[in-house]
Order: sequence, then C-alpha cells, then structure tokens
Amino acid sequence: MSATDEAVTEPTADQVTPDQVAPGHGYTGNKDAYLRRLKRIEGQVRGIARMVDEDKYCIDILTQVSAVTKALHAVSLGLVEEHIGHCVVGAASEPNPELRAEAIDAKVKEAADAIGRLLR
Amino acid sequence: MSATDEAVTEPTADQVTPDQVAPGHGYTGNKDAYLRRLKRIEGQVRGIARMVDEDKYCIDILTQVSAVTKALHAVSLGLVEEHIGHCVVGAASEPNPELRAEAIDAKVKEAADAIGRLLR
Amino acid sequence: MSATDEAVTEPTADQVTPDQVAPGHGYTGNKDAYLRRLKRIEGQVRGIARMVDEDKYCIDILTQVSAVTKALHAVSLGLVEEHIGHCVVGAASEPNPELRAEAIDAKVKEAADAIGRLLR
Amino acid sequence: MSATDEAVTEPTADQVTPDQVAPGHGYTGNKDAYLRRLKRIEGQVRGIARMVDEDKYCIDILTQVSAVTKALHAVSLGLVEEHIGHCVVGAASEPNPELRAEAIDAKVKEAADAIGRLLR
Repeated sequence: MSATDEAVTEPTADQVTPDQVAPGHGYTGNKDAYLRRLKRIEGQVRGIARMVDEDKYCIDILTQVSAVTKALHAVSLGLVEEHIGHCVVGAASEPNPELRAEAIDAKVKEAADAIGRLLR
Repeated sequence: MSATDEAVTEPTADQVTPDQVAPGHGYTGNKDAYLRRLKRIEGQVRGIARMVDEDKYCIDILTQVSAVTKALHAVSLGLVEEHIGHCVVGAASEPNPELRAEAIDAKVKEAADAIGRLLR
Repeated sequence: MSATDEAVTEPTADQVTPDQVAPGHGYTGNKDAYLRRLKRIEGQVRGIARMVDEDKYCIDILTQVSAVTKALHAVSLGLVEEHIGHCVVGAASEPNPELRAEAIDAKVKEAADAIGRLLR
Repeated sequence: MSATDEAVTEPTADQVTPDQVAPGHGYTGNKDAYLRRLKRIEGQVRGIARMVDEDKYCIDILTQVSAVTKALHAVSLGLVEEHIGHCVVGAASEPNPELRAEAIDAKVKEAADAIGRLLR
C-alpha cells in the first residue's frame, strides 16, 4: 500500500482539534480492547482478500463481508457510547452555565452527526 | 479527498467485465479491482487502529469507521450484483426445465439471504 | 419537511413504465400478504404518532421506530427476492440472445441499484 | 387491523417507567413537527400499499420503501439527539454525585441500546 492510501485514513492537520491533543478520551480505558478488535477486523479483511484471490464462492465472501460490517458496527457503537458518556457528560459538567449550554449543544450535535453517518 | 471518495472512484477505467468468458465466479473478471479495494480497506482499518493508539478524538475515529463500513457496502453490492448477473442468470440458462427451476430457486434464495445479512 | 419530500411518496404519471401497466409482477402471487403487512406497518406508524402525542418515553418510541424499520426491511427483501426470481430470470429466458443480454443487464442493474438504496 | 396488531405498536403496561408519566421529554418542543412527519410517513406507507394493489413495478415500490425507511431513520436520529441532549444531560445535572453517576450510566446505556437497535 502506498503512502497516499495511508494518508487517506487520517484526518488532515487542519482537522486537529484541542480534543485530539488532550490525553484521555472516552475510549482510553478500553484502548487495548479496541486495538485487539481492530487487529481482528484487519485480519478478517485480509481473509476476505484471500478468499477473492482463491476464487471462493461469492456468497461465502459476502457472508464474511457482512461479519466485518457487523464487527465495525460494534466498534462504532462502543465509541458512540463512550462519546456520550464522556464527551457529552463532560460538557454537561462545565461550571459556567453559558459555556455549558454551548458545549453540550456542540457535543450532542457531533454525536448525532456521527450516528447519522453510521445509519447511512 | 476522503476515504469514501477513494472507495467509490475505484475501480474506474478497468470495470471491464469479461464475465462470459472468464472461468470461476461472477467477480473473477474484476478480481484485481476487488483485491485493490480490499487492500485499501485493510489499510483504512490499520489507520483506525493507529488513531486509537494515538488517542485521536473519538468522533474523528467514528468518521473513519463509517467510511470503511461504506467501502465494505460498496464491495458487497458489487458481489451481489455479480452473483445475480452470473449465478442466478447461469441457473436460468440450465436446459433441463426441472433442474432449472430448482437451480434458480436455490440461487435466488442465496442472494436474498445474503442481502438480508447486509441489511441487518 | 419540504414539498419535494411529499413528491417522493408516489411516482408521478411520467414515471409510469410499460411494466407498471402490465399485470403480474414477481410479488403478484403474494399480493394479499404484502397488503396485510403494509396495513400493519401503517398501524404501527399510527401507534408511534399516538405515543408521541401522549408524551411517551423517547426510548420506547425509538424501539417502535426500529420495529417498523425492520418490518419495512423485510418487505424490501421480499420484493428484491421476487424481482430477482421473476424479472431477472424472466430476462434470462428471452430467446433472442442479443436482446437477452441487454434485458439481463438492465434487470440486474435495477436490482443492484435498489439494493444499494436499501443499504444507504 | 386486529387489536393484536395494534398492541404490538405500544409498550405494555409493565414497561411503563416514571419517565413515561412525567410530562415533557426531549422531543416535546418539537411534538407537532414529529406528528406531521409521522402523518406523512403513514401516508407514504398507504401509498406503497396502493402501488402493490395496483400492480406497480416492483422496483418503483422498492424505491418508495427506501424513502420511507430513510424518513424513519431521520425521525429516529432526531429522537436520539433529543434523548442525548435532554435525558443524558438531565442525568448529568443531578446534584447528588452517586445518584448522578448511576443516572448517567442508565441513560447512556439506554441511548447506546437504542442506537444499536437502529444499526441492526
């Protein structure tokens, strides 16, 4: 895989927000579990490529693709849950009421947009 | 350019489908294109793991997970289309009428089950 | 919601194709079953409106919306299966080989587009 | 439609939670908008039944089913957003820290479960 392909997978520099440099997100406590799940998903994708390469039956390949999609949905759901429990709740505990309302709105909007992308 | 754009734009020029002459399955003629797409998806999954490892913002990770899910949906849809155009149509051209009806039923059922798994 | 959204609910006269006037589609044999399922879905949607009107808890409303979405997916899947088994297979039995290839391509493309819309 | 069908659309008495009797949920401010959207969706479902009854082309019916599914997704997304912004944030402003942690966990869990059902 080329460097360009790799670059596609990450947000560009100007998308970097203060949140990204702050250590400790909602998922940080489960980081190892997420890394293991993603490692397994990576292996599943490689397995699908191998099935294509070996001319396996299309329906069997589709079954594996569905399994990977399901596994990604589970990862997404975990991240959404942690975003809500960490980022939204964090915004709700901002002491300044005006900043709080603004912060909550921003985090709730982010969550809804992310869920909307998952549903599409 | 987003990962989704990449996934959608490929395979571009080489969408030639010599399905009729190629042995193997519906997707055999596009095997290289599928392998390239799966290679890229594998790289995207690895990119997501790196984002988790580097404590990137959860919403940015979710965006990448949605992009991979979309790319996998595109792969699925390609495989389903080729299953219908190759396996179902192949069954429909079975000369023995009784075997034909049975073969069609089996292939259509397989297609519907696979699509059902994609929708869930 | 806009007037454009309204327009989506029924095909306009100029979308009528010869297929629409021709009697007997893939689903015709199961017409009564489809009408019953759609009648029930209509009642479920009305039930959701009643829940909103009576200020029921949002999560309980969401559960019902998911149930209706699932019921619609089941209807879609049935229609797709019958399109494949009826329209695609019908095209495949066209005696003229040139017309046949064209007809198959058109029906397979329609099926794939419809499945793509379901996945989105 | 039978009484049994109707019963499916609403939670049974023993699923009633204190939240359901308390007036004012996240969506209450947009109640009229939700009722209008659901009214339109109900009409769309009735339109699909009419298409089936009139033997319209299966692909055109599928297009309408996809439109209704999309409209339901939009309703779901609105309800989820309001659950997060109202119920989760409400739990986060509970003054007693111990009750707060518990309330947040319960509301976040409910949100994640509801989103999980939407994704399935």
